[in-house]
Amino acid sequence: MQISDHVRHILAQYDGERPGVKANLARLLLHGRTGGSGKLVILPVDQGFEHGPARSFAPNPAGYDPHYVFELAVEAGLSALAAPLGLLAAGADRFAGAVPLILKANSANSLAGHADQAITGTVGDALELGCSAIGFTIYPGADSQYEMFEEVREAAAEARACGLAVVVWAYPRGGKLSKDGETALDVVAYSAHMAALLGAHIIKVKLPSAHIEQPEAKSAYAGMGIDFSVLSNRVAHVVKAAFDGRRIVVFSGGPAKDSQALYDEVRAIRAGGGHGSIVGRNSFQRPREDALAMLDTVIRLYLGETAGA
Amino acid sequence: MQISDHVRHILAQYDGERPGVKANLARLLLHGRTGGSGKLVILPVDQGFEHGPARSFAPNPAGYDPHYVFELAVEAGLSALAAPLGLLAAGADRFAGAVPLILKANSANSLAGHADQAITGTVGDALELGCSAIGFTIYPGADSQYEMFEEVREAAAEARACGLAVVVWAYPRGGKLSKDGETALDVVAYSAHMAALLGAHIIKVKLPSAHIEQPEAKSAYAGMGIDFSVLSNRVAHVVKAAFDGRRIVVFSGGPAKDSQALYDEVRAIRAGGGHGSIVGRNSFQRPREDALAMLDTVIRLYLGETAGA
Amino acid sequence: MQISDHVRHILAQYDGERPGVKANLARLLLHGRTGGSGKLVILPVDQGFEHGPARSFAPNPAGYDPHYVFELAVEAGLSALAAPLGLLAAGADRFAGAVPLILKANSANSLAGHADQAITGTVGDALELGCSAIGFTIYPGADSQYEMFEEVREAAAEARACGLAVVVWAYPRGGKLSKDGETALDVVAYSAHMAALLGAHIIKVKLPSAHIEQPEAKSAYAGMGIDFSVLSNRVAHVVKAAFDGRRIVVFSGGPAKDSQALYDEVRAIRAGGGHGSIVGRNSFQRPREDALAMLDTVIRLYLGETAGA
Amino acid sequence: MQISDHVRHILAQYDGERPGVKANLARLLLHGRTGGSGKLVILPVDQGFEHGPARSFAPNPAGYDPHYVFELAVEAGLSALAAPLGLLAAGADRFAGAVPLILKANSANSLAGHADQAITGTVGDALELGCSAIGFTIYPGADSQYEMFEEVREAAAEARACGLAVVVWAYPRGGKLSKDGETALDVVAYSAHMAALLGAHIIKVKLPSAHIEQPEAKSAYAGMGIDFSVLSNRVAHVVKAAFDGRRIVVFSGGPAKDSQALYDEVRAIRAGGGHGSIVGRNSFQRPREDALAMLDTVIRLYLGETAGA
Amino acid sequence: MQISDHVRHILAQYDGERPGVKANLARLLLHGRTGGSGKLVILPVDQGFEHGPARSFAPNPAGYDPHYVFELAVEAGLSALAAPLGLLAAGADRFAGAVPLILKANSANSLAGHADQAITGTVGDALELGCSAIGFTIYPGADSQYEMFEEVREAAAEARACGLAVVVWAYPRGGKLSKDGETALDVVAYSAHMAALLGAHIIKVKLPSAHIEQPEAKSAYAGMGIDFSVLSNRVAHVVKAAFDGRRIVVFSGGPAKDSQALYDEVRAIRAGGGHGSIVGRNSFQRPREDALAMLDTVIRLYLGETAGA
Repeated sequence: MQISDHVRHILAQYDGERPGVKANLARLLLHGRTGGSGKLVILPVDQGFEHGPARSFAPNPAGYDPHYVFELAVEAGLSALAAPLGLLAAGADRFAGAVPLILKANSANSLAGHADQAITGTVGDALELGCSAIGFTIYPGADSQYEMFEEVREAAAEARACGLAVVVWAYPRGGKLSKDGETALDVVAYSAHMAALLGAHIIKVKLPSAHIEQPEAKSAYAGMGIDFSVLSNRVAHVVKAAFDGRRIVVFSGGPAKDSQALYDEVRAIRAGGGHGSIVGRNSFQRPREDALAMLDTVIRLYLGETAGA
Repeated sequence: MQISDHVRHILAQYDGERPGVKANLARLLLHGRTGGSGKLVILPVDQGFEHGPARSFAPNPAGYDPHYVFELAVEAGLSALAAPLGLLAAGADRFAGAVPLILKANSANSLAGHADQAITGTVGDALELGCSAIGFTIYPGADSQYEMFEEVREAAAEARACGLAVVVWAYPRGGKLSKDGETALDVVAYSAHMAALLGAHIIKVKLPSAHIEQPEAKSAYAGMGIDFSVLSNRVAHVVKAAFDGRRIVVFSGGPAKDSQALYDEVRAIRAGGGHGSIVGRNSFQRPREDALAMLDTVIRLYLGETAGA
Repeated sequence: MQISDHVRHILAQYDGERPGVKANLARLLLHGRTGGSGKLVILPVDQGFEHGPARSFAPNPAGYDPHYVFELAVEAGLSALAAPLGLLAAGADRFAGAVPLILKANSANSLAGHADQAITGTVGDALELGCSAIGFTIYPGADSQYEMFEEVREAAAEARACGLAVVVWAYPRGGKLSKDGETALDVVAYSAHMAALLGAHIIKVKLPSAHIEQPEAKSAYAGMGIDFSVLSNRVAHVVKAAFDGRRIVVFSGGPAKDSQALYDEVRAIRAGGGHGSIVGRNSFQRPREDALAMLDTVIRLYLGETAGA
Repeated sequence: MQISDHVRHILAQYDGERPGVKANLARLLLHGRTGGSGKLVILPVDQGFEHGPARSFAPNPAGYDPHYVFELAVEAGLSALAAPLGLLAAGADRFAGAVPLILKANSANSLAGHADQAITGTVGDALELGCSAIGFTIYPGADSQYEMFEEVREAAAEARACGLAVVVWAYPRGGKLSKDGETALDVVAYSAHMAALLGAHIIKVKLPSAHIEQPEAKSAYAGMGIDFSVLSNRVAHVVKAAFDGRRIVVFSGGPAKDSQALYDEVRAIRAGGGHGSIVGRNSFQRPREDALAMLDTVIRLYLGETAGA
Repeated sequence: MQISDHVRHILAQYDGERPGVKANLARLLLHGRTGGSGKLVILPVDQGFEHGPARSFAPNPAGYDPHYVFELAVEAGLSALAAPLGLLAAGADRFAGAVPLILKANSANSLAGHADQAITGTVGDALELGCSAIGFTIYPGADSQYEMFEEVREAAAEARACGLAVVVWAYPRGGKLSKDGETALDVVAYSAHMAALLGAHIIKVKLPSAHIEQPEAKSAYAGMGIDFSVLSNRVAHVVKAAFDGRRIVVFSGGPAKDSQALYDEVRAIRAGGGHGSIVGRNSFQRPREDALAMLDTVIRLYLGETAGA
């Protein structure tokens, strides 16, 4: 499709970036039903690695088949599919050109005793599979966080030289962070900011709670005069932390929940100026028709076509 | 846009190719106004290098500006823009995502005394600029032909590993070929076949004449029982030489000519099963409005929407 | 032999993979007495490295001689022989072309204090020895698991580029896993799934018990409505976790046992849709004639030619 | 299939060669209907590059499609298919494992003014496509012969390190050779010997005439006391020149001819101890049924099953 | 100094270029007395290599000392000093930061029998010496032109990756060009265009004559309706050939001449939209005070501060 004003505006924020990276950002921003609106709805399927196949796919066994998740992304008109190497490789040929791909290039599992990730994909893999971007998880706060930052930086430099966009999943955890701290407003905003400083083009965070984790940050938040009990205000704060909105920030839906709760979150993301959603378990764990109906509503909410009641 | 049946059929001919290459072929086949039809209309602007700027751009001085040719490709809804490094680099940032790009990676000039080309771009350049393909000229018959084949083979292997499609401009010349032999039916078909054997995904040739250059080929042609005085039959023969139509073959318009002659050629390409046109001087040497009107007719001819009278 | 429908169906699951990898998978699937049936019976002889020669070969001292195990694999009509570098190198010349080889490229020993493996073979070794595949062990759950994943990923990428198939021995152990957890259904299925995501073409796991190790997975299993006290249902679940059966999964026999127990396992593997067995100690620790008789029964069970009573 | 005595005997001639090379020679010698007999019948399809598509495929237009020649090789039960990169790549995926492949890695065309070849494939290509061997043409006697020897030697060393067999097409031509000299007995035997000295595992030559080209060789031939007017004696002489029969030598059928003439040649090759035939134009230029019937007779002649009357 | 509108406008033409390259272009454009005006006056001292020291420095023996030319460039307030490795290395320490440096990275001498250049400097040298740019000569039309293009392309890619600007001296000569053709308008414009296509950021050409060298270009020039007997029109044409003025084009003064002739050339360059002068022999071959006075006038002419009478 033609470059829209929304997309032109977003791309202009990345001035100085390699043209190939911008072209791949444009591919993501122009594809699917939200194409041209400046919003992204992405399907991530890395939960099999992260939580195991039974917890991920038993609720809707069709999801065991990699082709199913490609079909879901294509049929729903999503912006992109993000997954680890083996899953993408199982469908990249048959679905070549049908939906932009993001190679999730590091992975962890729930058998591990510490917060870290293994490098499970490379820039070469991403190019060979025709991906538009390569994605990495970082765990701000974890004992291994600096090694993770360094791995991401190195791979991101290689990716940019090849024109690939870089997506960073910024998931605070480990170290001295409390469980509540993992989604605390200050910590999520901090993590988004560090992802931007590490060179991420697209930043993926969880929706933040109103909790402030760091004692030394409390007065700063208290002095802002913003009502952070309102989710859209928290979204707006995280977006502001990502270079005043110059970087694309998408929010994850988290564990499966009922549709109305999900729609409320989408409304808040849109109201707060977030760039979209990354919806995994809430989509592929539902029966196909339910998932398509839910994603249709999410997309229409982003396009302002429905109240999603 | 969605993958159409036409595009699915073409991609299926490239079985065994890397998914990334297929994804980039899909990008070319899905973009622009012919997107989804299985036809390509490509704007090449390498004549500045090949013939010099005055001969190329003086007829329509707007063409001196690289941005003009990007705009022309975008506005006309073409499938791709093909050009040498410097020209693509001058617009790839501003027009990121607006039109698929093909880096013409070797170049010759009219000051040279022999038929050869210099390598003027690399796979790395193509990736950095966000190109979907990389293109090379070969001169079958020239004294330097085998060195050119080897250069193309080496760069093509690197391109495929990075998911880029490979376009070969097969232009017979030099050696023992007569001037008429450069567009002879047997020689053009032979050149298209060699390009396919060298691994080209898209083959670009000139429209062949009915002349048969090689004495030892005359009986083979005489025995086919095909009326080669008809241009569409010649087109069909060249397409057959490209692995029985398994490779995309596009035809060049050659020197600027009047519109009716060009439309007749397009009709013959379409009737003969050719995959499209690469229209350079006939488009950028005309005033913008004339060029857009002509390209509109060419596109509609390929889509079967007009008789182009 | 000719490609059978069973083999064609299996190869089609690997769409997008390099033709050379498919050709090597075809070699494994077409060789030996199960050739063409879609089933594999593989002889692994890495126990000398893993447990020491006396524990491995004293029960049948013929096994100390590498040539013996080649002869056993050839005479029994097995699909392949898998072993570390030195053992394969000791017979690959004399038995060239007689049986497909899998280079087991990392190895551990029982003298070690922690769960890890050394890289003891390379892709270059595998090519020089004429292997069809290269194999790696991973220990999901171990403290070193992520480093192992990264080693496997790097070598697997190199192997695929050279047309070699990649076999992953997925053996959960270490970290916070209990001893029962190493063969727990959830953990084995999880490990098979991760092997597929890491790009394995063939996955080797132990037959799972009905134990569920991870507390957070229990509800998922409880909700499936499947009787996991039945071994074939557990096999089917593991196969499903390997991309819904798109990846070849073979099961190990584990410690030596009586023949009937082994046959029961084979029946369950076949009933559950598993792709075959990897039978080490149960074959090479028996006297030659016993081993051949047992393997004959195993093969006939897979071919549906006997009840193996 | 099992290694036969014939095959074991041939492999034993290559003592000291890498096991992987022997395994690939075994693949060729065990495949197809001549499998195990020590004879090879190979389909080469490089004439499109060498002579152009019309001269090659117009007599039987089905041959324009690469899939047709794969099907022909599979259906006829041939030992291998040999072709340049693009043709193999067009079918290697769909026909993975169905027939051993030989990558013809250098190529010439009839537009050239001098006797040389371009490198058009690499060891990496051969591995990726799952080939068993890589083949090169040399032109003993040509001005470029030493460069060609060096190119072959370098690629052959790389191929052997990767376990690939090396096939050399030894075609004397150019320099001071007369036209008759290109198939002269002394020159063909000389060429086969040099191919063996360059490290070829399989040597492909044209059937020699009784002409002796080199004046200084005449007395040697006169003194042998062998009746070289008998074709089988000439075959035996060439085989002797290839390390006393320690290297596989196959003979080409040359231009299309009638079946009886071809069968007579096969009888002579067999009687002279040649290892088989490489039959290109005589097979793919006939209608499919004719070609299959002819190849069936050729195979039965090699197997001693028919008199081929 | 602050970025001026002139400089901002010029930098904007290089959209998509690496920020480091732009920063170095800005250094050149902001330094010296023309800083901020969008004009460059550069001192090149490569004549010692090209013509020998006596012909270069005997007229003003102070020039034998590299420090003298650094002092001249600094004292005259020039934009940059361009010279081969040894000369720059002899002053880069003492004059560090005093004037931007351009490493002339290939060099020829008048002892040579053919038109070519040796690589005499590298990107690493340029970085180590603190240069802002690296320069290369190409000889369009020479037998070696394509090899030179390839050398420049390779070094330019490395330079850009390190943030260095690339200057190309485009000097047509050799091959079928006549002596008059070396400065012919069509050939100079063609050469400037090719330099831009090769990725040059700054293009240096000789002032063109009104001669048209290429017969096939004559009609294009005749049809432009421009009076090319006027030097400023010829300058404007060359600038247009450099991507419609998107690339910086500077003109050389050529052999030493009287000041008025030089001032007339500067007036024409300025009137035609050229970006400045590169003044070698006319400056360093004069006594210091004369040179400084002449350069003062040149600078004031570019700044519009004098009529230079």
